[in-house]
Amino acid sequence: MELYYSPLACSLAARIVCLEAGLPVALRRIDLANKRIDGEEGEGLWRLNPFGKVPTLVCDDGQVLTENVSVLLYLGDRAPAHSRLMPEPRSPARYEVVKWLSFVATELHKRVLAVVFSLENPPEAAKQFARDGAIKPLAILEAHLRDRRVLVGESFTVVDAYLLWALLLLPRPLCGVSLDPYPVLRAYQANHMMRSAVRNAMATEYEEYKQPGWWTASALKGAP
Amino acid sequence: MELYYSPLACSLAARIVCLEAGLPVALRRIDLANKRIDGEEGEGLWRLNPFGKVPTLVCDDGQVLTENVSVLLYLGDRAPAHSRLMPEPRSPARYEVVKWLSFVATELHKRVLAVVFSLENPPEAAKQFARDGAIKPLAILEAHLRDRRVLVGESFTVVDAYLLWALLLLPRPLCGVSLDPYPVLRAYQANHMMRSAVRNAMATEYEEYKQPGWWTASALKGAP
Repeated sequence: MELYYSPLACSLAARIVCLEAGLPVALRRIDLANKRIDGEEGEGLWRLNPFGKVPTLVCDDGQVLTENVSVLLYLGDRAPAHSRLMPEPRSPARYEVVKWLSFVATELHKRVLAVVFSLENPPEAAKQFARDGAIKPLAILEAHLRDRRVLVGESFTVVDAYLLWALLLLPRPLCGVSLDPYPVLRAYQANHMMRSAVRNAMATEYEEYKQPGWWTASALKGAP
Repeated sequence: MELYYSPLACSLAARIVCLEAGLPVALRRIDLANKRIDGEEGEGLWRLNPFGKVPTLVCDDGQVLTENVSVLLYLGDRAPAHSRLMPEPRSPARYEVVKWLSFVATELHKRVLAVVFSLENPPEAAKQFARDGAIKPLAILEAHLRDRRVLVGESFTVVDAYLLWALLLLPRPLCGVSLDPYPVLRAYQANHMMRSAVRNAMATEYEEYKQPGWWTASALKGAP
């Protein structure tokens, strides 16, 4: 498999899952601002994904998957069963995982983060409406996690990786959604930061993000 | 099963799938503006869904599913195999369906329609940024459907029901995203409007939507 990613973009969730599962995957770095694949000339990402986004996953059979919900489901299904990253097909827990994947994708990622960190230069009023939109989903997550260590079931699943990415970016300066009012979410975050896959993926992408030169600085300006 | 819906809201996709599959489902109508269940007092929807949204599906085992991606996957899995509404678990086509479900949920529904039809009174700049966001995903869909009758595989799946709902609302006056520049999408829409489940679900909800009195008129003002 090949995972096309950009440091600290939402593809971080897929990277965490690959590490958790020990999945063999070649990581291909993208400069999102110009769709360039690191080490190549030109706008190579368009070849694979008409939307020019990450994550883009090229599976072993050549299928190209995009969209976090689909990429994370696929990777979770490839993980060894003992990792418990993805519940069995047709089980109630699996639909719960999909529900929360979609919740993170729509209510935090698309409604808030995708607007605030957009490369399309949204008007400030649109960014503020986006930031305001974080309050309700964060309150729902705070209540849901009050008596739980993870979003679904008893152990870490692919959707926790996705939420941890969103919680990483929400308080960054450009977004500015503080997690201070959400002690449960902060404890959840601190707890899972102790997982080596989470810590390693985040630390590695922080370092890559700070490397000058290879990427267009405007892409995630102020994000990390 | 009980499907909580509001006329012409995104729960229309779930209604179409139930009709396509012949699934037994009790339909419970919601006034989205005040979360009231038709025929009851009070704000009953909060009991079931902390986000107060439709679709909310109460499954036969009592599990409560929200989020279209999850509700549509679940209903597709309950449909008889000959309906071919949802590809088999772990098949490549299934991940494709999830990919396009997420694409419609994020790029059209959450990025565009949820902002324009929001009950939170977004500033006009946020609405215009939302409308502008429709151009790129519609162009991608136009290209994808050029040589296809359906989004995935050879026959109608749950994701076509979701896209048909989005295409229904995009050109409505409050949103104002014309489909005129997209002849392929218009042909796709016209083709599937010939399906009795699609036509019946839309016609029924149009009639309900126009009924005065039972619902708060501001909820989807100008939508249909």
